[in-house]
Amino acid sequence: MTKPVEFWFEFASTYSYPAAMQIEAACAAHGVPLVWRPFLLGPVFGAQGMTDSPFNLYPVKGAYMWRDLDRICEAAGLPLQKPSTFPRGSMLAARICAANADAGWIGDFVRAVFSANFAEDLDIGQAEVIGPVLEALGQDAASIIENAGTAETKQALRDLTEDAIARGIFGAPSFTVGDELFWGHDRMAIALAEATRDD
Amino acid sequence: MTKPVEFWFEFASTYSYPAAMQIEAACAAHGVPLVWRPFLLGPVFGAQGMTDSPFNLYPVKGAYMWRDLDRICEAAGLPLQKPSTFPRGSMLAARICAANADAGWIGDFVRAVFSANFAEDLDIGQAEVIGPVLEALGQDAASIIENAGTAETKQALRDLTEDAIARGIFGAPSFTVGDELFWGHDRMAIALAEATRDD
Repeated sequence: MTKPVEFWFEFASTYSYPAAMQIEAACAAHGVPLVWRPFLLGPVFGAQGMTDSPFNLYPVKGAYMWRDLDRICEAAGLPLQKPSTFPRGSMLAARICAANADAGWIGDFVRAVFSANFAEDLDIGQAEVIGPVLEALGQDAASIIENAGTAETKQALRDLTEDAIARGIFGAPSFTVGDELFWGHDRMAIALAEATRDD
Repeated sequence: MTKPVEFWFEFASTYSYPAAMQIEAACAAHGVPLVWRPFLLGPVFGAQGMTDSPFNLYPVKGAYMWRDLDRICEAAGLPLQKPSTFPRGSMLAARICAANADAGWIGDFVRAVFSANFAEDLDIGQAEVIGPVLEALGQDAASIIENAGTAETKQALRDLTEDAIARGIFGAPSFTVGDELFWGHDRMAIALAEATRDD
């Protein structure tokens, strides 16, 4: 029986970019339900004792990551422009996703925000960037951004991040299928295989 | 024009196990020359400020890695028994490879040592384990093990590890094709594609 894929992503995360651009179409192609699971990597890294992205803490690994991401994006036909600030503030966009995870426009919003960060080098932490993204999707930007600042929405994102940690998630993107955890853009295919596997 | 793949591996490294078991057959299937490049991860991690395997330093990531390795080995038909000591001392086996990288038996030796560590839970740091491995390959174990302790062999392995660091290698397994670096068992296929790519 087909199980849903829960897609755990962070708007500042480099490998989340190609995964976020591909996941909805990949799930549709396999007939697999998709659940968007935004969370924040900061507290996840903090729980591991890290105060910054491992790609900044370990610059040799960071240099490789950018080259590897280049190759992945080229193979996928995705534009890539290295963000002038890394990691970018992702709180606002993540809260909007947490509050609107079931909205019909959420996939388009996720992809537009990732494109803004990784293809257009825009500061996605700013309402001045996120507002026009929402408007381009025909949404009421002012009200959605206001709702992102409510205590309820803040708590919803905190709950998602706590849930990520409780599930053993330590990086992004991650995929969960039932209790099985898959980490990394390069594990998307086997996560989908797990979701469609006959028990 | 086909380029060689240089395979950088460490006998204590978990993801090096499936890669080492598969690389020679994969290269042969693609008509790609294979260069064995043993090195030690200890000095590579040390150069990044780490005093242990990242899988021990970040236990949540470590727990995931063992589950991920389980899945990889199951898919590849490789037995896996979690080593009772991790990481295992790999100096002796690495020195033997450094001194005999062009020997006809080196592929069989590499696979036998990885199997000893990851399928049979044997202490590959001991001559009592490595000796019988060499003997089973019809080699003169005593003389090969003695040669592993010479200043020349020790220096050869140090040179390989320094070369790895100079190339930006930060983990194992890694693959280099010319100046292109690929990290991880899951990058073996694109390393082979790079080796056979028409310029």
